[in-house]
Amino acid sequence: MSRPAGRPSADGGFVKEIPPKDAEFSDWYTAVVLKAELADYAPVRGCIVVRPYGYTIWELMQQGLDRRFKATGHTNAYFPLFIPQGFFAREAEHVEGFAPEIAWVTRGGGAELTEPLGVRPTSETIVGHMYARWIRSYRDLPVLINLWNNVVRWEKATRPFLRTMEFLWQEGHTAHRTEEEAEAEARQMLDVYRDFAERDLAIPVLAGRKPESEKFPGAAHSYTIEALMPDGQALQSGTSHNLGQNFARAFGIKFLDSDNAEKYAYTTSWGVSWRLLGGLIMVHGDDRGLALPPRVAPFQVVIVPILSGKERDAVLEEARALARRLAAAGVRARLDDRTEVTPGYKFNDWEMRGVPLRVELGPRDLARRQAVLVPRAGAKDTAALERIEAAVSEALEAYGTQLFHRAKRYLDEHIVPASTMAELVEAIAGRRGFVRVRWCGAATCEAALRQASGASPRVIVDEAADGACLACGAPGTQVVYYARAY
Amino acid sequence: MSRPAGRPSADGGFVKEIPPKDAEFSDWYTAVVLKAELADYAPVRGCIVVRPYGYTIWELMQQGLDRRFKATGHTNAYFPLFIPQGFFAREAEHVEGFAPEIAWVTRGGGAELTEPLGVRPTSETIVGHMYARWIRSYRDLPVLINLWNNVVRWEKATRPFLRTMEFLWQEGHTAHRTEEEAEAEARQMLDVYRDFAERDLAIPVLAGRKPESEKFPGAAHSYTIEALMPDGQALQSGTSHNLGQNFARAFGIKFLDSDNAEKYAYTTSWGVSWRLLGGLIMVHGDDRGLALPPRVAPFQVVIVPILSGKERDAVLEEARALARRLAAAGVRARLDDRTEVTPGYKFNDWEMRGVPLRVELGPRDLARRQAVLVPRAGAKDTAALERIEAAVSEALEAYGTQLFHRAKRYLDEHIVPASTMAELVEAIAGRRGFVRVRWCGAATCEAALRQASGASPRVIVDEAADGACLACGAPGTQVVYYARAY
Repeated sequence: MSRPAGRPSADGGFVKEIPPKDAEFSDWYTAVVLKAELADYAPVRGCIVVRPYGYTIWELMQQGLDRRFKATGHTNAYFPLFIPQGFFAREAEHVEGFAPEIAWVTRGGGAELTEPLGVRPTSETIVGHMYARWIRSYRDLPVLINLWNNVVRWEKATRPFLRTMEFLWQEGHTAHRTEEEAEAEARQMLDVYRDFAERDLAIPVLAGRKPESEKFPGAAHSYTIEALMPDGQALQSGTSHNLGQNFARAFGIKFLDSDNAEKYAYTTSWGVSWRLLGGLIMVHGDDRGLALPPRVAPFQVVIVPILSGKERDAVLEEARALARRLAAAGVRARLDDRTEVTPGYKFNDWEMRGVPLRVELGPRDLARRQAVLVPRAGAKDTAALERIEAAVSEALEAYGTQLFHRAKRYLDEHIVPASTMAELVEAIAGRRGFVRVRWCGAATCEAALRQASGASPRVIVDEAADGACLACGAPGTQVVYYARAY
Repeated sequence: MSRPAGRPSADGGFVKEIPPKDAEFSDWYTAVVLKAELADYAPVRGCIVVRPYGYTIWELMQQGLDRRFKATGHTNAYFPLFIPQGFFAREAEHVEGFAPEIAWVTRGGGAELTEPLGVRPTSETIVGHMYARWIRSYRDLPVLINLWNNVVRWEKATRPFLRTMEFLWQEGHTAHRTEEEAEAEARQMLDVYRDFAERDLAIPVLAGRKPESEKFPGAAHSYTIEALMPDGQALQSGTSHNLGQNFARAFGIKFLDSDNAEKYAYTTSWGVSWRLLGGLIMVHGDDRGLALPPRVAPFQVVIVPILSGKERDAVLEEARALARRLAAAGVRARLDDRTEVTPGYKFNDWEMRGVPLRVELGPRDLARRQAVLVPRAGAKDTAALERIEAAVSEALEAYGTQLFHRAKRYLDEHIVPASTMAELVEAIAGRRGFVRVRWCGAATCEAALRQASGASPRVIVDEAADGACLACGAPGTQVVYYARAY
């Protein structure tokens, strides 16, 4: 059996304290985070403590991402937390974007520092400095490195996972010989993110390019995956940047090419954070609490034995055997053999915690050599004990697919075409989701659309514009999805 | 085949630039760290960048530890990087121990902070604060949590991995119902560390208790594993602390026991850091460079095809097949098919990087359906291609055992009994290793022994003292090992 990721506490009042998701979405979110013991508020403004149950989800997310990063040739490394003040100023757009958000260490070892140290908000600058030392020849390229670390950005308003002063994330940093290779890398990693979000988290996304106004500070092109939350707002869920030669020039990342000419490298960076965990909660949860896709569920299965009457010991023994068999089959299974609470309490408790599948086993089931399988959503079923591994595996697969399709249907139903600026404004005001907008590509038109709607252009997708720009009436050249965003 | 953890760079001058280990130990260490591309100096005082090859070793170390933590019932979580200034002062000994080493954030979001935030040097205080919120009843105990994170301690002198301002580590934090449980936990985790050091890192250690003077600030008892480095100095390699009720009282970690009485919990903490990686380098390396035990080697095997003559393509094809077969058998194998360097260059290069086993395959081997196996130390052997998986697995096992036994023999030969204070002083001056000292247990005697020898009491082992205290001549009650230490 898998190890407990924080045992449920004895407090019985969880489920009824979660407000309805539709009516009080923001309070619902906070209640789920706290009641499912995913995280708690820390005694530091804007920071959270990620509790064992929440952290185990994050570990499973890390594993799903890390496997994909390694399969595409990347290796992990570690760069320092502190960055000298002067580094930020080297790339003009970068410093403008990040300076207001930096936390500064000014004292250490009992003395004032001569140069303050910034706590990294992201590591392009210090990575650029080191790459300039390491890269000499075209033979040293590409450099394909990923970092798993913590970063700090001084945020005004904060919400658990979605926007916190400190957060855990990964940041990939690569250097390439040609512009084409860097562009291919940035797009490849966007694909990796989309694949991870859709397969492991069951969250469908829109993937594409960011408009100029929404680019990463210092990037040539930024790419993004955008998910839709149940309140009609977009969640930027992962970004990948082709940095061109901007950071290479700022930090002197040069190499001797095979033609004996010294050239600047092309770099990329890409990242996702525990914000994805916030998206997961919002997209799949319901009035009963959390709902987790099987791939990232700390416990994929909870086994609840119905312990009554004289068959009690036999049932418990069989339940233990089931737990062992499922663990041996690679399933994260948890046996809930508590005696101080009722089976009904356990059902609610594990549903609130989002466990994908419940296996019930009572005296009558034992007599029939079967168990009852109850997915977190969907129909109850029975399975013969002798084929429990296969039955559980099929039920988990079906449940994961169901979660994705439900979310995909929601996304599809909340992509709203707008033919006029008035339609855009109305759709945004009605929180109807992503609004599909035709655009001529002019910054002035983007500004007009943004101002009129109060929404931002989230992502430019690879679709032909089928009509006029909503702002100026000139021929549309691009399709942009607008939404309010987290 | 496993993915490259940083490809070797084209620079050919690695091996001859490493100074002799015995004659210039300190320079040898730095050269190995840099040349094997384990780490590089960062542009921040006292900080390092851990490069892909070094970080992959750390990842393998993390996996070996994390598996053991989970097998003993622990789950991971995440606590904030920043700790409010006031928290440190709550436990009197703790603040005295750590205050001088704390880095302070005093500005953030463009404004001065009203209360500075300390960058965590360790997390007992903020963990204590949260545990006080989470723990209500004896049913909530034990709490068994581990954290993988970065900490900062303002150090004056720094050396890669051994002493750095920022370092990666894990810190376990547990809370228990009784003193006995906390003591058992602290001892269990010391055993976990010893087992990990000896099996995975092939580093033999002395395990035992720290004397009062060397305890963790705020602990009731501290336990330690101490390894011996080739320069006769001890490396404290992992510590485990029974914190008694000290932090529980300071932070109010109370619970209602089954007898309806409110009681303070008993807590522990325990940690190891990337310092162990420094120990690994020192213990096993030699004049040719790094030597890695198989369990933590990024590449356990390098396959070097001898590509000459008309059999060239056939040899390369067979080498590729070998790489695939070894990977399928769970071996981290790397095929070095570079054509711009000679096989001899590759041999030196991978030896310098500490790869445990080299597999050579040339035209004559191919004709005989065999490969040549060359361990990083030890005798060359041949193996039939058809049973290469088994042969490689046996060779790796034998090599790991050999590394451990060599290190164990060195440790055993460098444990020096002292019957008088003069013998202690002489053994320490001669850098002869751990000096076994009988002690009466009095602090004044400890101070006298420390002052006379210039060494510190590293660890009290569970042995009966077989004679008089070296300082005062009273009956010895304990056996303490003294050494100079990193």
